[in-house]
Amino acid sequence: MSVFTPVPESVLADWLKNYAIGRLVELKGISAGVQNSNFFVTTTLGRYVLTLFEGIPRAELPYYLHLMAHLARHGLPVPAPIANSDNEYLGTLEDKPAVLVVRLSGASEMSPSLRHCEKVGAMLAGLHLAGQSYGRRQDNPRGPVWRAATAQSVRDFLPQDERTLLDAEIAFQASLNAAALPSGAIHADLFRDNVLWITDDNGDPHIGGVIDFYFAGHDALLFDVAVTVNDWCANADGSLDPVRTAALLGAYQAERAFTDAERDAWPAMLRAAALRFWMSRAADFHLPRAGEMVLVKDPNEYRDILRLRIAGVPALPAGNPV
Amino acid sequence: MSVFTPVPESVLADWLKNYAIGRLVELKGISAGVQNSNFFVTTTLGRYVLTLFEGIPRAELPYYLHLMAHLARHGLPVPAPIANSDNEYLGTLEDKPAVLVVRLSGASEMSPSLRHCEKVGAMLAGLHLAGQSYGRRQDNPRGPVWRAATAQSVRDFLPQDERTLLDAEIAFQASLNAAALPSGAIHADLFRDNVLWITDDNGDPHIGGVIDFYFAGHDALLFDVAVTVNDWCANADGSLDPVRTAALLGAYQAERAFTDAERDAWPAMLRAAALRFWMSRAADFHLPRAGEMVLVKDPNEYRDILRLRIAGVPALPAGNPV
Repeated sequence: MSVFTPVPESVLADWLKNYAIGRLVELKGISAGVQNSNFFVTTTLGRYVLTLFEGIPRAELPYYLHLMAHLARHGLPVPAPIANSDNEYLGTLEDKPAVLVVRLSGASEMSPSLRHCEKVGAMLAGLHLAGQSYGRRQDNPRGPVWRAATAQSVRDFLPQDERTLLDAEIAFQASLNAAALPSGAIHADLFRDNVLWITDDNGDPHIGGVIDFYFAGHDALLFDVAVTVNDWCANADGSLDPVRTAALLGAYQAERAFTDAERDAWPAMLRAAALRFWMSRAADFHLPRAGEMVLVKDPNEYRDILRLRIAGVPALPAGNPV
Repeated sequence: MSVFTPVPESVLADWLKNYAIGRLVELKGISAGVQNSNFFVTTTLGRYVLTLFEGIPRAELPYYLHLMAHLARHGLPVPAPIANSDNEYLGTLEDKPAVLVVRLSGASEMSPSLRHCEKVGAMLAGLHLAGQSYGRRQDNPRGPVWRAATAQSVRDFLPQDERTLLDAEIAFQASLNAAALPSGAIHADLFRDNVLWITDDNGDPHIGGVIDFYFAGHDALLFDVAVTVNDWCANADGSLDPVRTAALLGAYQAERAFTDAERDAWPAMLRAAALRFWMSRAADFHLPRAGEMVLVKDPNEYRDILRLRIAGVPALPAGNPV
């Protein structure tokens, strides 16, 4: 959705007195984003992003904010939330839960090269490793329970062949047991538009920021890898490019070795990740919520990706030499 | 001192396994700095600075590291320390206490303009405001007790006129009572070489980083203002430039209003701040410590600044209009 709750400059200027980041210089709405109202905020001391939460229950927000703070503390380029004079991250602005975070530099890359895929694989592993010492836990809000429930809500809107595909996939996924897989805090939405790139003096791309942690949760780490590969390593037709896939997975594996259980679960996990986005897009498309300005994305893209992943996928790389 | 403890790449590569910042790409010694061994560390996931502490007792380090983390959490551009897989900032490398911090961007500006002085004044106030909610306390290691003790150690090396100046100043400072002044965590060494500047697309300077918090401590906030003004607003002869001084103090005051007690104490505090650097430089010069490669700075510069501040200084700005 685009900006949703307008914030007058005078109201923000007053609210900033709770912070030590100087006085307001500029406030600018951000039109991207699908869930919250976002603004660029420039003060006399720095550049920040202000988010007003429009839909996420307030009680669920500390998990996200403390996860971002934890990952930043561990040296990763994520939007660290800013504490106010009460040492709290979460405030209230225009009657909405609100947070200021550090504004990171860089721009999205929608046509990633091999090098981008390597960097993303390494960064994802870094996020997973740092997340292992995160003390809070909140389940992936788009996990298996949500996927099965959403399938029930949308199946009546689908043509018969898609219903058949969906029913079979839900049954297949229900037969799997993710309990043997390494788990932890995952980003769960590491699409190309959620990574900001900076080019260094040698023309090499570097990740300046990983943003939008508001779908994060506790789940199998491999689900996060699957979401990421499905987006970063797909060709225009949704099929996986074997070279970019190997680059991303190899760079990930160099930081965290895959387990045998993960190698077994990989094809099913790519399907679960495809199902998750087919379902969320189908719900946005068929069940629009009143008053929300959602950027509706094509559900068929992820229906087709699911079909392709069912047809076959490249294996995870073999174990590291010891 | 320059790099002091060499760190082999293989040792660092191994040590980095305690962190989630990827694998070592480059390690480079930094020749600046007067107290510790510093290195630029580039990994597959980012750019960091590694510090091995050569002189500060390990028990005193948590105050500095948690202060840097606190100020970063409050949105200020300071070198946030990186937590390891035990969630700890402080580690041990080559038998020395060691920390990794975020590497900030920018370069020092040794000929600051009015605009630089305004920005530094505002930033210093931001540091003081954010520091008010910092829970730890450790006294300024170069506070009144240290200054008086160091005066005793160096006075015998000084010519008669300097001894007279020093004895009179120590007596004058002993007659003052800083208890009525607002206090908190102060940087205490905010010289031009400890601020990194970035120029934006409009040619405006912005502070990319405030570095070197290893002289920080609890003291009168006004002492920090005095240290900063003595460096940023001085002409080549040590006298204060009234325009730059007014710019720095005005920008500070816009964020935190000075109290009447601070206005009264201002001339004495500029003298205390000058005395502090005269004493540390005189001690480095006359009492060099074996085995240390200290960059000896001219003590006479701050002796002369003290004389000039005794002769007269501009007043703090009047209170803000309500």
